[in-house]
Amino acid sequence: MVNLLLVRHGQSTANASNTYTGWTDVDLTPKGIEQAKKAGYKLGQIADVRLKKVHTSVLKRAIKTANIILEEQHLLYLPMLKSWRLNERHYGGLGGLNKDETRRLYGVETVQKWRRSFEAIPPKSDNKHFDYRYNLVPKQSLPASESLKMASERIIPYYEEQVAQELLAGNDQLIVAHGSTIRALIKYLEAISDQNIDGVEVKNSEIIQYQLDNQLAILQKNRY
Amino acid sequence: MVNLLLVRHGQSTANASNTYTGWTDVDLTPKGIEQAKKAGYKLGQIADVRLKKVHTSVLKRAIKTANIILEEQHLLYLPMLKSWRLNERHYGGLGGLNKDETRRLYGVETVQKWRRSFEAIPPKSDNKHFDYRYNLVPKQSLPASESLKMASERIIPYYEEQVAQELLAGNDQLIVAHGSTIRALIKYLEAISDQNIDGVEVKNSEIIQYQLDNQLAILQKNRY
Repeated sequence: MVNLLLVRHGQSTANASNTYTGWTDVDLTPKGIEQAKKAGYKLGQIADVRLKKVHTSVLKRAIKTANIILEEQHLLYLPMLKSWRLNERHYGGLGGLNKDETRRLYGVETVQKWRRSFEAIPPKSDNKHFDYRYNLVPKQSLPASESLKMASERIIPYYEEQVAQELLAGNDQLIVAHGSTIRALIKYLEAISDQNIDGVEVKNSEIIQYQLDNQLAILQKNRY
Repeated sequence: MVNLLLVRHGQSTANASNTYTGWTDVDLTPKGIEQAKKAGYKLGQIADVRLKKVHTSVLKRAIKTANIILEEQHLLYLPMLKSWRLNERHYGGLGGLNKDETRRLYGVETVQKWRRSFEAIPPKSDNKHFDYRYNLVPKQSLPASESLKMASERIIPYYEEQVAQELLAGNDQLIVAHGSTIRALIKYLEAISDQNIDGVEVKNSEIIQYQLDNQLAILQKNRY
């Protein structure tokens, strides 16, 4: 039996102001920091978990949440990989816009599709937020806007290469990432249909534990 | 031209109480956190540095200093490697003892040799602080006590394999580590003799910058 733990970052300034962010590098709020500490504590209480590696995005709200969780558990020394592939879905032209405002601009139904359906692509962005942290990513791989499907197509290869390999070797893994990153992983892990993914939500600093067998089939799922 | 930056961690609880620590995993003090923030700010002011990777030990006082420096510079997304090879010198039986107390116990001259000479080995330790973070290190490689020479023999291979390779590829590197780790690196980089190393001291959160040519010869050294 091996453990895969998924944690969404704590509340960000954008969560607090109800705006879309995507790849914009917003910080945690004081409440988000507290949520991350609590997640660290709760994670430490889960029986039979011995984390061996941590994976996160290149966005500070996830990295800081990961560091806070590790510090809370006295595990700061664990290896941590940071990859653009675990970034939040790129929200394109919605980035920086208030969620209510986008509903007024584009209509409730369209916005709901962009937010929750698998294939809907938000309007493209001019400002792609590609500072030099993305220098080593091929330009044609960097998105101007992503559906959850497009985000999955960059997220799942990371899971296959960096996470599943470790799980197959028996090493418990922690992924600290974003709402859409985690939805994409849940869809893949549980083979949820394109239609049914729109009901899946993950809260700030929520922990999802998958206990997996040695073929990575799900034995049990717990949410904290 | 490529930059190698060395930073000693901020003040630890052991620095504050004037005790030996070595591999004991003590935390930063509030003053140490402030020092780390200042080091982050100062580091950001150094011209023509573009950090590509960070190296630190598996001890939290160094890891936290590194994270604070990166956060201060909005560089949390940089890859960070954590290795036992960059740990502080293992102080053996001196660990946890007050520095004045050891002088009374062993005499000023003996203690000064243990602290500052290249080859003197402190008394061995019973408590080796080998929790499971050291599980992947071969047992016979883990020390019971180290001279600066012995510490160098584990530190320099890390520099050669993980740091120098990157510097030769033109990537600025930051090492956030410990007093003895940095003394060992300075000795190696500047080819300081065994006799002359006892004069080299590094303060908490001090930054040492080496500007190196493409063969890694030193062009200039700055201290901040």
